[in-house]
Amino acid sequence: MIDDPDRHASKMAKKKAARDKIMATKTGEKGLVIVHTGKGKGKSSAAFGMIFRCIAHDMKCAVVQYIKGGMDCGERDLITARFADICEFHTMGEGFTWETQDRTRDIEMAQAAWEKSKELIRDPANRMVLLDEINIALRYDYLDVTEVVAFLRDEKPDTTHVVLTGRNAKDELIDLADLVTEMELVKHPFRSGIKAQKGVEF
Amino acid sequence: MIDDPDRHASKMAKKKAARDKIMATKTGEKGLVIVHTGKGKGKSSAAFGMIFRCIAHDMKCAVVQYIKGGMDCGERDLITARFADICEFHTMGEGFTWETQDRTRDIEMAQAAWEKSKELIRDPANRMVLLDEINIALRYDYLDVTEVVAFLRDEKPDTTHVVLTGRNAKDELIDLADLVTEMELVKHPFRSGIKAQKGVEF
Repeated sequence: MIDDPDRHASKMAKKKAARDKIMATKTGEKGLVIVHTGKGKGKSSAAFGMIFRCIAHDMKCAVVQYIKGGMDCGERDLITARFADICEFHTMGEGFTWETQDRTRDIEMAQAAWEKSKELIRDPANRMVLLDEINIALRYDYLDVTEVVAFLRDEKPDTTHVVLTGRNAKDELIDLADLVTEMELVKHPFRSGIKAQKGVEF
Repeated sequence: MIDDPDRHASKMAKKKAARDKIMATKTGEKGLVIVHTGKGKGKSSAAFGMIFRCIAHDMKCAVVQYIKGGMDCGERDLITARFADICEFHTMGEGFTWETQDRTRDIEMAQAAWEKSKELIRDPANRMVLLDEINIALRYDYLDVTEVVAFLRDEKPDTTHVVLTGRNAKDELIDLADLVTEMELVKHPFRSGIKAQKGVEF
């Protein structure tokens, strides 16, 4: 069904007015703590999308990779090859923990990554800092979530955005965060499971 | 509690063996239909993250923006300025429909965007084509979902990935898709709502 054009225009005009009114109240600027978690795809991709957006706007930014160091990473190659002047990139991890099987070493690496992260976040020149897969390090207690949350709350400059990714984000971090997105994997069989099937419904 | 190091190593070795076994079965390559939907942030950012990953791997790709043309887009500026040789970029929309309030014009634009999309997808040189915010055009019936689904099913080259973004993805598209991620906005008050509060629990 196609709406009557006048009715459509009037409906959309109302929507625009409502939206403009809401947007007019949103004048403040604030550096956000942003968390991407969940079992779905896109947690790191969306974070890197924001990093590329910063690069596009000529905003200084930085990335610390906590876990994926041992794996191939196209974004890293592109950023280090083309945008090293605007985005500092540190790969501190050596692959997921089941690849290394050495907890002591994993803890040392996570701690070193966190020290580098603090240094980058404290530098007010950085407008966004991405702590990629830090949630994995927090989940295995390679890092103390209390310390991470306290630092973000007390020492992060007001205008700096910090993005933290990885599944199983800790509740303490979610409580602190300004914006939390959960990437859910939608499975087709469950979604389309309402179809009647021979032998089951008839 | 810190695990015993030997126990940890043995646990992680088992995890690695299980993971390696699963990964060994995944040898096929196939161009995927990927959908990012949901009310949360990150649908387009994650898709652009994948586009930048293609660029990093020197894989030809293309973007058609269905709706956001009137808005600022850092990714567009960066891609058109620096990577136009590897990623073709088309902005076909003029902003959300409540900005234009002209349904006839919106339909014409969406149809033009779809014609361009088909041309890009049919070209086997393109390894990934992003149809950004096409779900909005489908939702308002500016495009016929049956036609879009039939095209993706019957005419998409086997090795080409097509990424479709926007909230309210239609069921027909979700049924067809290989990979669907729903970006959910997690609201803090609900998430942390289990805390006992004076006047309520005590």
